[in-house]
Amino acid sequence: MKADAQPSRPIWLHDDAKSVMVIDQRRLPHEFVVADLRTVDDIIMAIRKMFVRGAPLIGVTGAYGVYLAALQAAAENNWRDALLRDCNKIKAARPTAINLVWAVDRLLETFAGLDTLTDVVNAARREAAAIAEQEVVNCRQIGEHGCSLIAEISRRKNSRPVNILTHCNAGWLACVEYGTATAPIYAAYDSGIDVHVWVDETRPLNQGARLTAWELGRHGVKHTVITDNAGGHLMQHGWVDLVIVGTDRTTYTGDVANKIGTYLKALAAKDNDVPFYVALPSSTFDWHISDGVRQIPIEERDPEEIRYVQGATASGLTHVLVPPIDSPVGNYAFDVTPARLVTGFITERGICKAAAEDILKLFPEKNQAA
Amino acid sequence: MKADAQPSRPIWLHDDAKSVMVIDQRRLPHEFVVADLRTVDDIIMAIRKMFVRGAPLIGVTGAYGVYLAALQAAAENNWRDALLRDCNKIKAARPTAINLVWAVDRLLETFAGLDTLTDVVNAARREAAAIAEQEVVNCRQIGEHGCSLIAEISRRKNSRPVNILTHCNAGWLACVEYGTATAPIYAAYDSGIDVHVWVDETRPLNQGARLTAWELGRHGVKHTVITDNAGGHLMQHGWVDLVIVGTDRTTYTGDVANKIGTYLKALAAKDNDVPFYVALPSSTFDWHISDGVRQIPIEERDPEEIRYVQGATASGLTHVLVPPIDSPVGNYAFDVTPARLVTGFITERGICKAAAEDILKLFPEKNQAA
Repeated sequence: MKADAQPSRPIWLHDDAKSVMVIDQRRLPHEFVVADLRTVDDIIMAIRKMFVRGAPLIGVTGAYGVYLAALQAAAENNWRDALLRDCNKIKAARPTAINLVWAVDRLLETFAGLDTLTDVVNAARREAAAIAEQEVVNCRQIGEHGCSLIAEISRRKNSRPVNILTHCNAGWLACVEYGTATAPIYAAYDSGIDVHVWVDETRPLNQGARLTAWELGRHGVKHTVITDNAGGHLMQHGWVDLVIVGTDRTTYTGDVANKIGTYLKALAAKDNDVPFYVALPSSTFDWHISDGVRQIPIEERDPEEIRYVQGATASGLTHVLVPPIDSPVGNYAFDVTPARLVTGFITERGICKAAAEDILKLFPEKNQAA
Repeated sequence: MKADAQPSRPIWLHDDAKSVMVIDQRRLPHEFVVADLRTVDDIIMAIRKMFVRGAPLIGVTGAYGVYLAALQAAAENNWRDALLRDCNKIKAARPTAINLVWAVDRLLETFAGLDTLTDVVNAARREAAAIAEQEVVNCRQIGEHGCSLIAEISRRKNSRPVNILTHCNAGWLACVEYGTATAPIYAAYDSGIDVHVWVDETRPLNQGARLTAWELGRHGVKHTVITDNAGGHLMQHGWVDLVIVGTDRTTYTGDVANKIGTYLKALAAKDNDVPFYVALPSSTFDWHISDGVRQIPIEERDPEEIRYVQGATASGLTHVLVPPIDSPVGNYAFDVTPARLVTGFITERGICKAAAEDILKLFPEKNQAA
């Protein structure tokens, strides 16, 4: 399939309004397959098995899941109970990203006061689309704010390339457009700044090597794929000017849950005076908890994700077994970077320090919740 | 092949004394193949392509390479020149591990004053075997000294399991017997202490997942394979009592070159008050340089090692391509952990702090060189 013939969003509602279309991200970059999700169970499966991933996209997928739940509820005796049951199932699909709960709850709130299922279906469809569009706007604004950081480094380096390290994929594939961590990079590139991205491959599922490298290459952004082990060495030698990552959940006090290994990069950035920024829409803040390490649930996933590595061979996608088949394996999917290691947050409303006071100054309407 | 029928050393001289036998470690744990190295070029190829790896084993292999060079020199007009030329070629096979240069130079020194090639051949064979046996003794002593650290933690934990994290493979496969980082673990296990090892898979070549897990499993030691990204998370939650790694070269001031990613684990250990020890024989100290980050040459290896991951399928060992084929890749093989992050060194003469004064107190005969 030609690149320019491919969709540029990872999720959209089918023209018939009966199914949700998503790029099956497990198969990128070697195969480009669009999956057709027709039921709530399809939605949950796609979130769990990571056809879709990334906090903002999980939220949008959950929202469309509620829309499918509303459609399905027509076949039930008590459509309200059935809908609520499905919403709870969707919220439990993955534990770490806050956006899933946030999006489902936002739809449930819009249903209050609606008397007919038809009204609920229409509201769900409208609201899911609104969340998707809001994430696009958020990401564009994150890009504009973050671009100023990159522009400043570029000026200081007399236009020599700005080297940015990122972990996992917080690109448009993880969002709807632009991405979170990548939004400032795309904005800088589009404005003519010379940028180069160090792409952590991001074991076990290699979202960096597979997805971020694919995204950046498609856009024409210079990049180099490295192992997750390499970032510290690069920083010691002055080859990294800036780290930008996304997040699956960030406390209002500034602790950042993100893909496992992020904490190690934050430590290396601190040790080498490299600025470490986290890009996120406000939908990824958790306004109710203050201690990330103790309070954010960290998902443990199937050990087979570590045992078997997927890649392309001449005969198609293949999984190969790396360790001895009988060796136990532990698969922790996220870690928490304490606020003290974070230089700042890039949000849709601007940049702030990683402290409750500064975060709440940008989002004063959340003061009550926190 | 049954495990107990397999050789328990990674290198030995064939009975005919004409070739060097090594386990082809690239194929473990899924295939057990012994390679027959008959020429200096075979030796260099086996070091470069990592049939053999690990600082002590690279040294022993280099020493046996000098022996093969002496055998080959009989066919040359000027055997001394030919031998010296081959020795320099062997020393250049890989840049980071100091043991290679150390071992080849040690053999060259023993040749001083020998007049006939026959004497040189005999001396080379004797000295290569002596280096191998010395590494066995060193590793056994490292095990005894390091075991005391583990025993102390076990007492403090009232015999609950001691959780040790290690990176890459510094086991008997990297040495001759016992290993360096694994020697204290095997000694503790053999003495009845309850130990559990977190095994970093160690991208790109997965020496942890492939070799350390295989070694530990064969010996019966409890272990869990994790991604290189996971160690920080484990330490944050108190699930790591001790880190022990090996090293490819350590300055007399205590800076530690080891497999890429070691520095990130040292940072996490420091941040969480987890003791971080480096186990090494004296042959791995570089007595001539003081600034590890600036002075230790870091090997860059073939990007294909990152692009393609090797593992087992039903039809045998296969390589799968992970990132987009046209994405650039950077493959830095080692990094340097500054002495300030190292709790101590476990050597054949005992345990010392990571500071020139303490290291030279254990090895006073090196004071002049430093």
